[in-house]
Amino acid sequence: MTYCIGMLLRDGLVMASDSRTNAGVDRVSTFRKMFQFERPGERVLTLITAGNLSVTQAVVSLLSERLDEDGAENLHNAPNLFEAARLVGDALRDVYERDGAHFEKHGVSYTAEAIIGGQIGKERPRLFRLYSAGNFIEASEETPYFQIGETKYGKPILDRIITPDVSLSDAGRCALISFDSTMRANISVGPPIDLFCYRTDSLSLTFLKRFEEDDPYWTEIRTAWAEGLKRAFADLPEPDWEV
Amino acid sequence: MTYCIGMLLRDGLVMASDSRTNAGVDRVSTFRKMFQFERPGERVLTLITAGNLSVTQAVVSLLSERLDEDGAENLHNAPNLFEAARLVGDALRDVYERDGAHFEKHGVSYTAEAIIGGQIGKERPRLFRLYSAGNFIEASEETPYFQIGETKYGKPILDRIITPDVSLSDAGRCALISFDSTMRANISVGPPIDLFCYRTDSLSLTFLKRFEEDDPYWTEIRTAWAEGLKRAFADLPEPDWEV
Repeated sequence: MTYCIGMLLRDGLVMASDSRTNAGVDRVSTFRKMFQFERPGERVLTLITAGNLSVTQAVVSLLSERLDEDGAENLHNAPNLFEAARLVGDALRDVYERDGAHFEKHGVSYTAEAIIGGQIGKERPRLFRLYSAGNFIEASEETPYFQIGETKYGKPILDRIITPDVSLSDAGRCALISFDSTMRANISVGPPIDLFCYRTDSLSLTFLKRFEEDDPYWTEIRTAWAEGLKRAFADLPEPDWEV
Repeated sequence: MTYCIGMLLRDGLVMASDSRTNAGVDRVSTFRKMFQFERPGERVLTLITAGNLSVTQAVVSLLSERLDEDGAENLHNAPNLFEAARLVGDALRDVYERDGAHFEKHGVSYTAEAIIGGQIGKERPRLFRLYSAGNFIEASEETPYFQIGETKYGKPILDRIITPDVSLSDAGRCALISFDSTMRANISVGPPIDLFCYRTDSLSLTFLKRFEEDDPYWTEIRTAWAEGLKRAFADLPEPDWEV
């Protein structure tokens, strides 16, 4: 399994991904699921992926290969984020074209999802969520975040905290808490966690950090969060019934 | 969809269920999913159900019908909770026997899950979780609660609060909070919420209440919980990074 979040805020973008993959409980590995495409001062794009690892790795390989192809449309020359999302959709479709029928023959379900966020030139930062079919939707003020993979356990905290007005630092902390809730419930989501924060108009990688399981700050906020939740629970009004 | 919880505690049992059913977003109805089988002073059994409503209602109807059949094994004469769970399993299998093939012909997925908890005579309170095939597992000290239906959104808070040592009143509050988190994320889980608390050796319905959406106490703890979570988040240690 996998868990990834992308958030679109007034101050910029926050994206995070775990690194665990599994094919059965006895084949658990660590793979990076976050990929940067950057031209400092001109564009920053971050892609996070979930689904069948052979598919998502192929998508990333195609996108990288195309950076070096003469005259090809690619993530380094796409004129805006919408066109960049289309290029990711094209890559998803190219992989499906080659592999889809073979997956079907072997009864393997074909799934690949992605979130791409970033800023190109003077355009505002944008965030898109792509489906296996290569189609996609864009985040907005009303729906400022997307999740892919094992999304449910970590959603309640996002719903309570994330609005477009949240600071990059609060959104980053909220992402780490959301990963904590998910990892407690589903062992197929696991560390390290890649966290990326982008400040609007910086056109560079504002903050990119890999949080290992024993990272001191992550450990600190996980403990503080557990205690804060227990305190919030203890402070609830007493029931108006007797048992 | 549906959400139900059953908890096995040292002090007794807490069980809760929502009342929303839907077949498509334009066919939403309210149906009770919690059923009591009681002989005061001798036994208290509570059944909560999730899955296809025609199946779970048929299961409950069969179980009720059998209470009046001469010489039939039923929930009023089962010698212990294990045998009671077997009777629920039998009813699940009887409905499948009659309906399963027809569901298949019409491409409708056959799902029915249930949790049964209670106490019979001098036996300790016990809690079982049944699957569509009529098989079941029993709660224990290590795993003191079961969920059925839309389980993921409401699980993180249970994992943090529920141990066998929690009081009936705290477990009841925790159930209400878990329903709040679930209902915020999935509109197919909805009020009223039936909450049942059973105190060990009372052999009577200790507490049974239907919480309507505007119930004053439920409203009060939902508000307090939202504020407590925000406070817990605001109190997290500041990041050790700058963005």
